[in-house]
Amino acid sequence: MKSGGLQTAVVGVTGYAGFELARLLMRHPRLKPPLLFVRESSGNGATGGAGSLADVFPQVSGNGSYSLEPFSWKKLESKAVDLLFLATPHEISRAWVPECIEKGVRVVDLSGAWRLRSLEYREVYGFDDQDPELASKLGEQAVYGLTELNREGLADAQLVANPGCYATSIILALAPLVRAEVIALEHGVVCDSKSGVSGAGKQPTSKTHFVEVADNLQAYSVFGHRHTGEILEQLGWRPQELMFTPHLLPIPRGILSTIYVRLKRAFTAAELQQCIKDFYADSPFVRVFAPAKLPQIQFSLNTNFCDLGFCLDAEGKRLVLISCLDNLLKGAAGQAVQNMNVMYGWDAVRGASR
Amino acid sequence: MKSGGLQTAVVGVTGYAGFELARLLMRHPRLKPPLLFVRESSGNGATGGAGSLADVFPQVSGNGSYSLEPFSWKKLESKAVDLLFLATPHEISRAWVPECIEKGVRVVDLSGAWRLRSLEYREVYGFDDQDPELASKLGEQAVYGLTELNREGLADAQLVANPGCYATSIILALAPLVRAEVIALEHGVVCDSKSGVSGAGKQPTSKTHFVEVADNLQAYSVFGHRHTGEILEQLGWRPQELMFTPHLLPIPRGILSTIYVRLKRAFTAAELQQCIKDFYADSPFVRVFAPAKLPQIQFSLNTNFCDLGFCLDAEGKRLVLISCLDNLLKGAAGQAVQNMNVMYGWDAVRGASR
Amino acid sequence: MKSGGLQTAVVGVTGYAGFELARLLMRHPRLKPPLLFVRESSGNGATGGAGSLADVFPQVSGNGSYSLEPFSWKKLESKAVDLLFLATPHEISRAWVPECIEKGVRVVDLSGAWRLRSLEYREVYGFDDQDPELASKLGEQAVYGLTELNREGLADAQLVANPGCYATSIILALAPLVRAEVIALEHGVVCDSKSGVSGAGKQPTSKTHFVEVADNLQAYSVFGHRHTGEILEQLGWRPQELMFTPHLLPIPRGILSTIYVRLKRAFTAAELQQCIKDFYADSPFVRVFAPAKLPQIQFSLNTNFCDLGFCLDAEGKRLVLISCLDNLLKGAAGQAVQNMNVMYGWDAVRGASR
Amino acid sequence: MKSGGLQTAVVGVTGYAGFELARLLMRHPRLKPPLLFVRESSGNGATGGAGSLADVFPQVSGNGSYSLEPFSWKKLESKAVDLLFLATPHEISRAWVPECIEKGVRVVDLSGAWRLRSLEYREVYGFDDQDPELASKLGEQAVYGLTELNREGLADAQLVANPGCYATSIILALAPLVRAEVIALEHGVVCDSKSGVSGAGKQPTSKTHFVEVADNLQAYSVFGHRHTGEILEQLGWRPQELMFTPHLLPIPRGILSTIYVRLKRAFTAAELQQCIKDFYADSPFVRVFAPAKLPQIQFSLNTNFCDLGFCLDAEGKRLVLISCLDNLLKGAAGQAVQNMNVMYGWDAVRGASR
Repeated sequence: MKSGGLQTAVVGVTGYAGFELARLLMRHPRLKPPLLFVRESSGNGATGGAGSLADVFPQVSGNGSYSLEPFSWKKLESKAVDLLFLATPHEISRAWVPECIEKGVRVVDLSGAWRLRSLEYREVYGFDDQDPELASKLGEQAVYGLTELNREGLADAQLVANPGCYATSIILALAPLVRAEVIALEHGVVCDSKSGVSGAGKQPTSKTHFVEVADNLQAYSVFGHRHTGEILEQLGWRPQELMFTPHLLPIPRGILSTIYVRLKRAFTAAELQQCIKDFYADSPFVRVFAPAKLPQIQFSLNTNFCDLGFCLDAEGKRLVLISCLDNLLKGAAGQAVQNMNVMYGWDAVRGASR
Repeated sequence: MKSGGLQTAVVGVTGYAGFELARLLMRHPRLKPPLLFVRESSGNGATGGAGSLADVFPQVSGNGSYSLEPFSWKKLESKAVDLLFLATPHEISRAWVPECIEKGVRVVDLSGAWRLRSLEYREVYGFDDQDPELASKLGEQAVYGLTELNREGLADAQLVANPGCYATSIILALAPLVRAEVIALEHGVVCDSKSGVSGAGKQPTSKTHFVEVADNLQAYSVFGHRHTGEILEQLGWRPQELMFTPHLLPIPRGILSTIYVRLKRAFTAAELQQCIKDFYADSPFVRVFAPAKLPQIQFSLNTNFCDLGFCLDAEGKRLVLISCLDNLLKGAAGQAVQNMNVMYGWDAVRGASR
Repeated sequence: MKSGGLQTAVVGVTGYAGFELARLLMRHPRLKPPLLFVRESSGNGATGGAGSLADVFPQVSGNGSYSLEPFSWKKLESKAVDLLFLATPHEISRAWVPECIEKGVRVVDLSGAWRLRSLEYREVYGFDDQDPELASKLGEQAVYGLTELNREGLADAQLVANPGCYATSIILALAPLVRAEVIALEHGVVCDSKSGVSGAGKQPTSKTHFVEVADNLQAYSVFGHRHTGEILEQLGWRPQELMFTPHLLPIPRGILSTIYVRLKRAFTAAELQQCIKDFYADSPFVRVFAPAKLPQIQFSLNTNFCDLGFCLDAEGKRLVLISCLDNLLKGAAGQAVQNMNVMYGWDAVRGASR
Repeated sequence: MKSGGLQTAVVGVTGYAGFELARLLMRHPRLKPPLLFVRESSGNGATGGAGSLADVFPQVSGNGSYSLEPFSWKKLESKAVDLLFLATPHEISRAWVPECIEKGVRVVDLSGAWRLRSLEYREVYGFDDQDPELASKLGEQAVYGLTELNREGLADAQLVANPGCYATSIILALAPLVRAEVIALEHGVVCDSKSGVSGAGKQPTSKTHFVEVADNLQAYSVFGHRHTGEILEQLGWRPQELMFTPHLLPIPRGILSTIYVRLKRAFTAAELQQCIKDFYADSPFVRVFAPAKLPQIQFSLNTNFCDLGFCLDAEGKRLVLISCLDNLLKGAAGQAVQNMNVMYGWDAVRGASR
């Protein structure tokens, strides 16, 4: 890192997650002003300019001027970028990362391009790699950036695969129980997740049309959502051990996952709470609720927290876990900053929340 | 029934379900104009009047004038009411029904007062019966008014216990599989339900405050919701075989239940669809969706339909059922009218939907 | 009209207004089953079919089967269509109407194609007529279908220009005062209107994206909305006498217009209410509220009512009018049916509301 | 001010504005940890405790522990509070302020208790002062805390009357034009304002019930809203020169005011923009939009900005101003912090925004 702070750049700042990321980086005390790239020139600036961030998101006007620039490799090098964040579709991330790594630029990728080890789970993305061998090698080196679980790997990572929003909410809720080996997996675990619309991206589609979403709720991608593979790989489960159904909520942002687990033995609420608290003792962004209290989506909005709560049945053997987070922060941009903090040995909470 | 149509009455028309019921009865072709009772005089009409329905719900002004009256037994008799609908809190329903039945007035009760057989499940309501023996006898005679399942009992019923909204959505989804005896119950069944706010009633509370509900989602009454007993009794299950979690959606009305089932043997989608369709062959208010299509809350709003859809996993042994309905219609007032139609031998679909 | 009812057809049933119209026509007691046209074959039915209405709008499944067909002139003739409803973009309506009229098919057009007399106001639409002379002649014959104001013209109309949703809400509120000649027009009249998102159409755009609309409000088309010309022409005003600003509300449907008027002389509330009531004495779809009560959007949703209310200041000379309606019913499809009823001499209220 | 920072306290932290204020003060770099008072003991802590802020608002758990305490004068003195923020009903503020001032504690009052000079406008509040003479004297000394307009008075103020949310949005939009004396006031000015529900407070009422607010819009307090007097006094207008109508939006927070003005002479858009920009040259929390761009509620949410935009008609003499702000920040808590910054000579923008 050069004096004056780390030079970061973001590609894809006009999407919802990219924009949140830009806002976080703009105020991070250890960074130079980040470069904000759009994938292509918007065409209205003939000489290569692409306007300012405030043109696209007037909410940031008055907070200093940040210009948008069409992405170019030349620019990346001439500005000596240390760390590149990709808030791009997975096809782009898959195609660009090899060159970044080759140029010695560290990458935090927010797409699904580098999260999966198993070829089988990767199929759902349909990657079309130019150099499959190199891609495969990079894929093995990539660190899955669920910060709380992979702090050590992150320190030296060249390529961090920032987790999916659903996957983050589910894995964080289940990891303490998996480590404690108390889940009666033969009955399967049910993860019923509900997400706000920003998770579906900024591209207007009939699925994101206000009239189709408001006053409504719908399940989608049942038995086929892309985040399923991440969850299984990180928890070390087989496909038949998980049933995961995402739903589209009529709210702009936030995820709540309701998770149903049968335990191998009876627990008291206090015992279970302690188990989860111990697991996250060094994790400032996980809040473990007392047994009587349940997280709600509102509580974690605009923060980088993942909130965990639970209810046990009278026998102490059936468990409902509730996990909430802001899909654009802990589920995307906030966790990306948290990962950066770990990559550079900084205080983990710095600048990851609004 | 006297000439000129059946004389009905509703108590509790100023609540959401009672109002919907009043609207349906006002247009039902086989009925005299219904009497609309409020539980107590609102006090602003000294001589016993309580204003008109349009005073409370301006949306019905211009559709004829319906006056509200404070409920009185005298009025009930002088108007020779044939059928009384109670859209009242369960304490009121529990207290009033014995006298109604004694007077020979048939009752459809929309509360939870008369739905449960088992003393254990009833505990959650904390009934305080004046004449426990009589209450117990009436409880045994009461017909659980899930119309599709209990048509025969309804024909002669003096007392119909209209089902809970969550219970309707869940029982209708599972009944065909229970009858076919294909559920691997040892793994348990998960019912993750989401409801609009009208299900919480019209009384303003912090739970129904707009700012607390909007942009939010919360689970509540985990392992303790009152409808759990209904579901278990109607399906013939033991408590440990069901995990049911309701959630409060930021929408005014509608319920979606996502139900997770493991099957004893593999099914094809076509086979399963046929099983459900056959079960509901004579049920005009159940719509069975094709395998690729899933119900959404919007589709059944303002109707008396319960929409059922499903996805099977690749092996055909794990099943996600989606069940949607309008909690104020099929989940309350619409089903009450549907029950009335069966009680009097009329066409079941008449007047049950808007 | 042939025996068995009038043969109607709708073009554009896959849009929001077209769909509402189809639903109304499907239940109208004086009609044969309506033909439901889409503008082009969706391509998935090789032999000319375009699926069924329930494929696009699952909410109508279970209510009988209505097939969609690609529009063709041949079909129009072979089915002997009496009355054609165009729920099409104004360019299409402008292009197709001449041929319809020539073929002797009466037309109710829901677009802005035929609403304006003045060339100046029409400019904003940028019509590109093939036969300008014929178009001009048809434009003069077209009857502006604000039913309450133009009943007489409608009886014999070949071409009815169904009004804009904003225009309906504003003109109905102001017409009684214009007729009474009590507005102090030299101060101008302010119409501040707010509409639900369905008014922006079903095409997904960034303007209708859920995340851009929810938790938000925005004004748009200030001093330039297309409905301005309709309002001015119908009220007989000059441009400087009206300031009209539409806003996009985070709700699916409904319009509320707040209208600010200075009066030439002082009025009492009772006097003003009487003035408006008298004006609408024969108009079953206009509800005039008592002075203390104000219409809300909820009250007229799913109805064909236009609700009017007002407040006078202490001196009785400054007036705030509130006008509410459902933009898809009284603001589009409901009024189209109401116009049809008048065109054929039927009861005006028949089938115009859900 | 003692070393280690200013000692502040807030009464009323369990309301929406009080909570926002507490959050801002908790992170303000010039302050000691603020004391957080509730008006009365919640009764569940026998020995005088009232729980922690995170008990009431779980969203702040994990950000350090702040205990709530029942307000007492003794505590106020023993903790040597320098500055007290009252986020209390106006009756409480009216009653408590004299004693605060007597004790030498400076006060920023967020209620309407001390905003108005004119007895006539004050009538709507119905104050019942114990010592009317003292109250009257204090009322004259109180500084109306619209920071941008009254910076000088704030520096030495003992009592700051923080403005109403609607008033802030309207006065800031109009002040530059009033100063420039270009409004043709004889035609009156129309202010059509729309607010999110948090402006109605946290107390559950039928007006704030989710089902009554969602999918709805309503006008209220036409010709009678309490903020009218503030606007008139600050702008120096007579009652007949303003028509102000507030509306309740189905969103949690944010205000948009649409303001209609006739100008004495024609303006160009550039000229008008310059006029407004010049007026706010030293006001970092007012963002003046370019002529083609209009503020939306989303843009200022979670900030202390007031966003101003406008459209001129073709002649340049009729003007629509759009003014947006977050009613809980610039409309309440953020402006209170901004006022504190000016009172103590600090950088105005410090800590006023989230």
